Amino acid sequence: MKKYDVIIVGAGPAGIITGVTAKKQYPDKSILMVREEEKGLVPCGIPYIFYNLNSVDKNAMGPKPFIDLGGDVITDPVIDVNIKDKTIKVKSGDDFSFEKLVLATGSKPTIASFIPGFDLKNVFYIPKSYNYIDNLFNELKDKKNIVVVGGGFIGAEMAEQLAMHSDKRISLIESEKFCFSKAFSNELSEIATEKLKKTNIDVHTSTLVEKVLGKNGVVAGVQLKNKNNIKADAVIFAIGYKPNTELAEKAGLTKNKVGAIIVDNYGRTSENEIFAVGDCSQTLGFLTGRCDSIMLASTATAKARLLGYNLFGVKIKNSFSGTIGIFSTKINGLTMAAAGLNEKNASLANIDFVSAEFGDVDKHPGTLKGTLSLTTKLYVSPSDGSILGGETWGGKSSGEIINIIGFAIQRGLTVYELISFQIGTHPLLTSAPTKPMLIKTAEIAISKIKTLNK
Amino acid sequence: MKKYDVIIVGAGPAGIITGVTAKKQYPDKSILMVREEEKGLVPCGIPYIFYNLNSVDKNAMGPKPFIDLGGDVITDPVIDVNIKDKTIKVKSGDDFSFEKLVLATGSKPTIASFIPGFDLKNVFYIPKSYNYIDNLFNELKDKKNIVVVGGGFIGAEMAEQLAMHSDKRISLIESEKFCFSKAFSNELSEIATEKLKKTNIDVHTSTLVEKVLGKNGVVAGVQLKNKNNIKADAVIFAIGYKPNTELAEKAGLTKNKVGAIIVDNYGRTSENEIFAVGDCSQTLGFLTGRCDSIMLASTATAKARLLGYNLFGVKIKNSFSGTIGIFSTKINGLTMAAAGLNEKNASLANIDFVSAEFGDVDKHPGTLKGTLSLTTKLYVSPSDGSILGGETWGGKSSGEIINIIGFAIQRGLTVYELISFQIGTHPLLTSAPTKPMLIKTAEIAISKIKTLNK
Repeated sequence: MKKYDVIIVGAGPAGIITGVTAKKQYPDKSILMVREEEKGLVPCGIPYIFYNLNSVDKNAMGPKPFIDLGGDVITDPVIDVNIKDKTIKVKSGDDFSFEKLVLATGSKPTIASFIPGFDLKNVFYIPKSYNYIDNLFNELKDKKNIVVVGGGFIGAEMAEQLAMHSDKRISLIESEKFCFSKAFSNELSEIATEKLKKTNIDVHTSTLVEKVLGKNGVVAGVQLKNKNNIKADAVIFAIGYKPNTELAEKAGLTKNKVGAIIVDNYGRTSENEIFAVGDCSQTLGFLTGRCDSIMLASTATAKARLLGYNLFGVKIKNSFSGTIGIFSTKINGLTMAAAGLNEKNASLANIDFVSAEFGDVDKHPGTLKGTLSLTTKLYVSPSDGSILGGETWGGKSSGEIINIIGFAIQRGLTVYELISFQIGTHPLLTSAPTKPMLIKTAEIAISKIKTLNK
Repeated sequence: MKKYDVIIVGAGPAGIITGVTAKKQYPDKSILMVREEEKGLVPCGIPYIFYNLNSVDKNAMGPKPFIDLGGDVITDPVIDVNIKDKTIKVKSGDDFSFEKLVLATGSKPTIASFIPGFDLKNVFYIPKSYNYIDNLFNELKDKKNIVVVGGGFIGAEMAEQLAMHSDKRISLIESEKFCFSKAFSNELSEIATEKLKKTNIDVHTSTLVEKVLGKNGVVAGVQLKNKNNIKADAVIFAIGYKPNTELAEKAGLTKNKVGAIIVDNYGRTSENEIFAVGDCSQTLGFLTGRCDSIMLASTATAKARLLGYNLFGVKIKNSFSGTIGIFSTKINGLTMAAAGLNEKNASLANIDFVSAEFGDVDKHPGTLKGTLSLTTKLYVSPSDGSILGGETWGGKSSGEIINIIGFAIQRGLTVYELISFQIGTHPLLTSAPTKPMLIKTAEIAISKIKTLNK
């Protein structure tokens, strides 16, 4: 039986980054990566396969950097993990033994088995599987009427991309009042939903799919709870993902209430020498310490990097325990992004906040060609002024401004500190030095807190 | 004699932001702003008047927000300040008394009086004066051959904008080996210079203007130190700015060795109740505490904001003493930005550092249309890993990524902390979650430090 110092199960972003980082830090350690499929995909790029890239292979990713560093990779699904013996068994029958095991098994789409008709032909999902998506890409080519169920990131982005094909009619069904309601505030969710409606998408909110309608075993439409029927040649369910933890469960690892493998700040599970990282592993809210369910490649790779450094003892401290979801997207030219707290998750967790918002333009003077609007919103603790969350939308620079807000949150910055911060500005690149977005927003937060304390 | 609680001399970004902030915080205080010209300009927007905006008025700015808050404004140059009596005299003869005085008198272009021919007709400068620039805008319309002297931000941006007019022939003269050499590292200065050369600009580096050549008292060309002659209908000197401190000097305020008014962390001069802010006031290097000469509207407004809050006692702490220059620009589609330390200013100040650089793309996968390259460079303390400076160039998002680096510097972040930071990514907006630019650069810095310490 071949023995490895480390075996990594999974070759998504979490698996690859764990492998690459570990191999760089510990070049003498033997590391095996075991994957299910020959090819992998950039997860967040999947929607763009369907129009912008117009190709599955242009969105492919794989463990080449890991192999280049001397890592071994096999394609053979793991069917069993024996923690006591420290071995794994793969489908083809081989066994491998390990000193340390990393589970990076990812997540799987939630199956709509509670909806009648879910098993009809042409009902699809968006798994992070090359083979599945390759097939879906081909299947959708000749489908004219497509219903996407679920207005979260993947669903809304899929709908937006499919709607770019002028010969298709796309409907998007969202159970909440607005799309993106899990990641964005009510205000931004509404803005996003309006934008989707202006994107040649038939958006139905505040309703559920009651039934997938079929004809001869093939999708023909959907029937909504509000009794509307929508004609469909294909239905794509994007109603969430669940940690893929079958192996972990069989092996006896402890899971949390949302079904993710429980890990500490360094990816260590309840069992010695067994690690988990990425979508299959637990995330904890950065403010509450409660388990939540943030599945983002960016979060996964951040944790994977730390795990890679620390596989053989903690060498790099985790400087921010907890997970801060930092989301961004672009729908029909409108960039939108969010990090940390908003009024919805604050209310769920009973956290006091003031919010402040400032809207301006993304260039200066605003008379420059190509100037777009830009709005920044901060959620701030009224007691100490620390920044707990934020949103930004409008011009494309929102995609990096949200990372400034992310830094501020992770570094415990207060609005009182922020307003004396120096910020670089340029006419063609940013808002004006007289009105730097974040500073202006911080000023508004300060005066709101002052009023509160009167 | 009319008495004001506060008199602000100057209506550039520093004056306006001091006035607006103070008026918001202290609505009952009477504040007078005294300016020299009726109209003002967005300083960093001036080069864009000459092509992108193609208008002076589109780049105008003024103290309207201050007036809207109840501030008074007069246009009448201040000719004297009497600190003992707490009065000012304006050109028309009026006197005003103040409780507190803020000097925001800005800076003036360095005059090329050491170069023969500097006084010929059609020798120009780039002062932040509406009237002057309005005239220059008209004067340059029919000039075909224009020589810009000085390859710093203003000079290079002017040359780039003027070169967009296909009927003009633009030359740019820079005494250093590369343009932008004050703000950028050698590497980025060279990249910038190459870009300028590809912008229909005749770039001459490592040479000086020996003489401005004339004919009948009018510019006809320049003669370089390397004996080359360049034909010219106009010469624009952009060879630096000096603090405008005549008034301060007459009033007896203390100045530093570069001629700026000495102030403490809250803009307080050597005289009680007299403040100075913006280009006319001292900046101190954030690492060295030595006086330097950073004149940026973004720096000025950051200090002005703090001054506005603190005019009547320090209410908001200055969270970052010292000045970190955060520069950005875009030349012919290439965005470039820098903050804090680079190898040149580090060497001048004898500061140890390691530098780390990572280059990738600004979207992911890089097969997406419109993907540009993106490179990030960090300058890091080898002892504690703290981030001392950085550069980023390529795609437009560099304009905000440099602000993330700026935050890291101002917040004392180390590369050890940075690599576990969570960063938001999106295919259309950022580099990949597997290769977030800043994190990758931090990783390289860490391994360089590790090698150093071996």
